[in-house]
Amino acid sequence: MTDATIPPPAAGPALLAAIQAVNASAKFNRWAGFEVLSASPGDVELQMPWREEAGQYSGFLHAGLIGALIDTACGFAASTLAGRVLASHFSVNCLRPAVGQRFVARARVVKAGRTQMFTSAELFAEEEPGAARKLVATGDAILVPVAAQ
Amino acid sequence: MTDATIPPPAAGPALLAAIQAVNASAKFNRWAGFEVLSASPGDVELQMPWREEAGQYSGFLHAGLIGALIDTACGFAASTLAGRVLASHFSVNCLRPAVGQRFVARARVVKAGRTQMFTSAELFAEEEPGAARKLVATGDAILVPVAAQ
Amino acid sequence: MTDATIPPPAAGPALLAAIQAVNASAKFNRWAGFEVLSASPGDVELQMPWREEAGQYSGFLHAGLIGALIDTACGFAASTLAGRVLASHFSVNCLRPAVGQRFVARARVVKAGRTQMFTSAELFAEEEPGAARKLVATGDAILVPVAAQ
Amino acid sequence: MTDATIPPPAAGPALLAAIQAVNASAKFNRWAGFEVLSASPGDVELQMPWREEAGQYSGFLHAGLIGALIDTACGFAASTLAGRVLASHFSVNCLRPAVGQRFVARARVVKAGRTQMFTSAELFAEEEPGAARKLVATGDAILVPVAAQ
Repeated sequence: MTDATIPPPAAGPALLAAIQAVNASAKFNRWAGFEVLSASPGDVELQMPWREEAGQYSGFLHAGLIGALIDTACGFAASTLAGRVLASHFSVNCLRPAVGQRFVARARVVKAGRTQMFTSAELFAEEEPGAARKLVATGDAILVPVAAQ
Repeated sequence: MTDATIPPPAAGPALLAAIQAVNASAKFNRWAGFEVLSASPGDVELQMPWREEAGQYSGFLHAGLIGALIDTACGFAASTLAGRVLASHFSVNCLRPAVGQRFVARARVVKAGRTQMFTSAELFAEEEPGAARKLVATGDAILVPVAAQ
Repeated sequence: MTDATIPPPAAGPALLAAIQAVNASAKFNRWAGFEVLSASPGDVELQMPWREEAGQYSGFLHAGLIGALIDTACGFAASTLAGRVLASHFSVNCLRPAVGQRFVARARVVKAGRTQMFTSAELFAEEEPGAARKLVATGDAILVPVAAQ
Repeated sequence: MTDATIPPPAAGPALLAAIQAVNASAKFNRWAGFEVLSASPGDVELQMPWREEAGQYSGFLHAGLIGALIDTACGFAASTLAGRVLASHFSVNCLRPAVGQRFVARARVVKAGRTQMFTSAELFAEEEPGAARKLVATGDAILVPVAAQ
């Protein structure tokens, strides 16, 4: 993402494309297979397919990746309103073993401030394609707009 | 890690070897290059070399990996006292851009309870081999011994 | 609250009365004027009128009382399902200056586990009686059922 | 505290007096009996004597007051470096039942940024005057300098 694209387009396909471009520019996101499913002002949905290298010692999704999905979705939700942001704090509640073929994080902006963006996310697991989603984790993040630093 | 290795040996080289065996059994840890440098009852040091695929969009260490290092080090610190554990909550403060050739997380058990282990960690970055370490993140985690679930 | 009242009645007026009795038994809650407005399985609403002694140096509601309202509402929400609980962790996001004549915290159980109850809350301020509520803080808490300790 | 006193004096008795003046200006702090024991740049020690009205339903120190002590001590530690600040986030780990005649919170600044101050605190209980202090809670807080808002 170049600074020229910030602040991001207000909504619509251009906003989704802008967030997808940021996602594609992050090498970790590409390795992990993160994909931005939807983006509207203050809301983002991000998915990741299961892969073997994402497992902890029991074969569940590693808590680090649970955190990465939550932090990334929260950052993207903030970006829809504030352009470039950096995470300053995030926290994660691991509610159930994260087991599935696909994981979907939904994040939203709770409060958009000039120096801090407060966001919240839920992470769902789908055991099989099309199966009911199960809530496996929740979390929240504080993001600082780069312009405010 | 098989259940036979739990609870871990009380201390010494066998404890370090037991924690290293857990680390080697987690595929994400192997992908990320996590390496257990030291382990004593209640304390663990974990390192990760920089790699391109660990970057976020600006090329800093991805907040997800900052969280993974902190969560993993905290989990291992808890394991030195309680054997198998699962993370139930963790939080991360990103103090500075995490830039370096090597990252080292130091975690310690703050309070070992029967149903909850409270732990705390610091993450340092080394810009070059042998350079002074810089504190880039702090965090803490609550782990639940599997035996208590 | 005596142990005889635990687990609490499943629902209805008896559940509300049971939670109100716990509230009345806590001296700090009485001093602060906490009042349980509603209680159903997994959900609780708690209010506090403004009082001068609740202010920080600028005259806003003190962050400690913001935390107390969130933690208490979360604990009561957990109690509707698990009886006596103790807080092990809570976190608070202060979104806006908490100014008002009345503060209302709404809490719900996100996941009820045997050893840990995960809960979440929102805190609203009403500037005047009947005025629109404004979201001033969010937070979450982990409670441990006393029976599981 | 008037704006004229900010930024606070660099150190010494004048710094302690400045923080004590802020403490005295907050009505909740006066009600709770908070007393600033020491203040140096980046470090503060705050105490509170036990009082009946500070109890939760079991008679332990209410989690809200645990949070208030941690948040307040963190805010004062930030104030020693940044003058007026507002809490934007704080979290608390309740390690043990907080029982004692006196509670002492020690807070320090972990990272002083222009828009965010990261702080950390420990809360100790003394069962009797002169008895050994017991660590009952830990926590951290993010404060925003009012000048940066």
